[in-house]
Amino acid sequence: MNNEIPNVEHVIEEREDFSGEKVVPFLIFYPKNEEDIVKIINFALENKLSIIPWGYGTSLTGAVKCDKSCILIDMSKMNKILEINDVDWYVRVQPGVRLIDLFEELEKKGFMLPPDPASFFLCSVGGATSESSGGMKGVKYGSFREWVLALKVVLPTGEIIKVGEPLRKNRAGYDLTHLFVGSEGTLGVITEIWLRITPLPRRKIVTIVAWLKDFKSAGEAIIGLRKNRILPELSEYIDIDVIKALNKNLNAGLKESQGGMLIISVEEDLVNDVVKVLEGKTEEIKITKDDEAERIYSLRAQAAIAVKAESKTFFAEDIVVPISKLPYAIEELNSIAKKYNTKFYIISHIGDGNLHPNIVIEDPDIRQKVFEEIGRMAIDLGGSISGEHGIGTQKAKLMAEQILKHNGAKVLDLMYEIKKLIDPNDLMNPDKYVELAWKYSNSNNNYK
Amino acid sequence: MNNEIPNVEHVIEEREDFSGEKVVPFLIFYPKNEEDIVKIINFALENKLSIIPWGYGTSLTGAVKCDKSCILIDMSKMNKILEINDVDWYVRVQPGVRLIDLFEELEKKGFMLPPDPASFFLCSVGGATSESSGGMKGVKYGSFREWVLALKVVLPTGEIIKVGEPLRKNRAGYDLTHLFVGSEGTLGVITEIWLRITPLPRRKIVTIVAWLKDFKSAGEAIIGLRKNRILPELSEYIDIDVIKALNKNLNAGLKESQGGMLIISVEEDLVNDVVKVLEGKTEEIKITKDDEAERIYSLRAQAAIAVKAESKTFFAEDIVVPISKLPYAIEELNSIAKKYNTKFYIISHIGDGNLHPNIVIEDPDIRQKVFEEIGRMAIDLGGSISGEHGIGTQKAKLMAEQILKHNGAKVLDLMYEIKKLIDPNDLMNPDKYVELAWKYSNSNNNYK
Repeated sequence: MNNEIPNVEHVIEEREDFSGEKVVPFLIFYPKNEEDIVKIINFALENKLSIIPWGYGTSLTGAVKCDKSCILIDMSKMNKILEINDVDWYVRVQPGVRLIDLFEELEKKGFMLPPDPASFFLCSVGGATSESSGGMKGVKYGSFREWVLALKVVLPTGEIIKVGEPLRKNRAGYDLTHLFVGSEGTLGVITEIWLRITPLPRRKIVTIVAWLKDFKSAGEAIIGLRKNRILPELSEYIDIDVIKALNKNLNAGLKESQGGMLIISVEEDLVNDVVKVLEGKTEEIKITKDDEAERIYSLRAQAAIAVKAESKTFFAEDIVVPISKLPYAIEELNSIAKKYNTKFYIISHIGDGNLHPNIVIEDPDIRQKVFEEIGRMAIDLGGSISGEHGIGTQKAKLMAEQILKHNGAKVLDLMYEIKKLIDPNDLMNPDKYVELAWKYSNSNNNYK
Repeated sequence: MNNEIPNVEHVIEEREDFSGEKVVPFLIFYPKNEEDIVKIINFALENKLSIIPWGYGTSLTGAVKCDKSCILIDMSKMNKILEINDVDWYVRVQPGVRLIDLFEELEKKGFMLPPDPASFFLCSVGGATSESSGGMKGVKYGSFREWVLALKVVLPTGEIIKVGEPLRKNRAGYDLTHLFVGSEGTLGVITEIWLRITPLPRRKIVTIVAWLKDFKSAGEAIIGLRKNRILPELSEYIDIDVIKALNKNLNAGLKESQGGMLIISVEEDLVNDVVKVLEGKTEEIKITKDDEAERIYSLRAQAAIAVKAESKTFFAEDIVVPISKLPYAIEELNSIAKKYNTKFYIISHIGDGNLHPNIVIEDPDIRQKVFEEIGRMAIDLGGSISGEHGIGTQKAKLMAEQILKHNGAKVLDLMYEIKKLIDPNDLMNPDKYVELAWKYSNSNNNYK
């Protein structure tokens, strides 16, 4: 030790994140303010340790993987909602606030923050900002990046800065805010977040559940909505294997239609238009009452839990494909599943093209092969290897492939240079995400 | 000349932008594709000339100011709408497309791109992207930065890259797209733009015109809307001097109420709620018929023209203040006007706190003084010195002040370092915007 451990609450402890990654840090600190974080940064620099901010560990991509060379900064003691401004329509929070607690406080005042990742009952606002998390309302309202107005950040070089302004419109300088949103803890420690909020919907929202004849109809139904210029509040999908898992493990009692279940919520006066689009594609269609809709969404939210009960391994994919390519992507997923004699238990924010095929293959080599095949299919279709879970360690290689194919090697270079510019000592969450993707692309000629 | 002039259409010509800045470039090129632009970049580098992309010259802040040391790249020959995708809900265009032409094509297909700067009938999509332009619909739909999905860019180092993906959700790497949106031609030449589009509103929109008793009521009315969780489609304001200018110069025949005119458009079922908010604040209130509403908006759109006819000089301010500070900001503007014995002819996207006091003072020193006083008031109120017009040369000093006060000197340093990283030869639009702001802050101790 070159330096005494700073006077900030800390423990030595092992953890595991939601992807099952072991997290065995040198030390876990619980900072209470920015000054504590500066102390921790100095301590890490002097002892050549790296730093990873930790919300509540709901990462699915190895973004908080950590060994003895790293310090975890547990943000759970910085968990205050600092301000809900009902005139300027923003909320200012510390990163350790749980998203569910923020949602509840906002709802009391007639507001919502739309992005609602499936882990909202557990995850932190800081984590959701660092991952630019999405959720079921993405089709209408986008993901976190569309709602973050400004951030307070302790930089890896120790400066405390604010990026952005808590204003809807601001043109003072380059947009650095969006560099930090989705930066996965690689550019600094976020200590305050200003988020735009919006009034709760005023109109009655009706949920339509469609049990589909075949899987492909799901994609065609979404294309039908698009062609008819119908923008739903939500449009979700689960396949037949997910329905079966829900029935078996959560006693859901859902009809097991071959093509799975499509759940579409729209403002009341759009219901007939949606039903028309679904014509000929369904075994059964149901316009739900309020409590039924709630039950359906609660089951949808628990779908991953039901699938997890089916298998020892569970690996959540997170591809995005252009809506126009949904039917083709669905066919491709079917044929990949057949080839490897497996099921994908597809859960999907289908309305924005974000598909979560869940891989339950136990053999790690075959699992990796399937994982990459699915990712490459998304890339080939002009889609993305991640819509909302992020990159971490698990998707760095595929991210490199996507950027080299869609954007150009120079784009990955620029991202890497920006990382070095903001974090010259490579202190924050090293060897993951952009850095790891850049290394893949520069160490292996196959990628160029 | 170290190099022959490349084989790309060009002229020698003088121009003037909308802010009255002289544009006397060494040469004006009309590229037809990315390869032409690479040739121009190489020519500029070898001859130590700088480059400025030019849309249709509607900049109000000196962003395209240019002398004999600079080459203008006129993008008007790259003016194709390449794709309107009615399933994936994006449009892909070249930068020289006029915004009005894009609006018309989209409307035919039932779509809109909401940001509608007052110059939409003239300006280019490339210009609006480079400035992150706003407009009247900003209160509900934000400005350009919320609608750009991806960009093709020729970098100042000659590489052709794409940043972003034409997908609503994409987590593959740091968000570089938002660095280029609002970069004012300082980071590269944008050659293709993917923009998100959305269906035209399905519901009847009704426009309410309120002639106010006093100016302050305008701010209080907007706060009232906010407190009642009413999100209008538009909410615009013009003060009594603008009304008088419209009556005098465009024969508008509008009632000249002391407090100016507030124009609020909402979905039909919200009209009564709005009227209730306005109670006690108006001399007269009118719920307009469709053609009346159109006439009112057409007059609102021509307000700047009417004001320009009143004075030899016309200098459009563009501050943003938090909604909660609107009444105070309005009082402050009144007292600054009194102090300098002038009128501000305020035009405002008041619903998002974006105020355009128009300075008509002829003496350049006093004009500059007033200009800075207004900007500093916005900064002091936690607002911004620009909402949608950008920085260029005119606001660089105030931008430095805002960032030093709200964000920290390190933020300006980071912006400057990013400029150097992407444009190491300082080729693109040098000595403006971020670079100029950084120089102000580092050359004068008063700013630190």
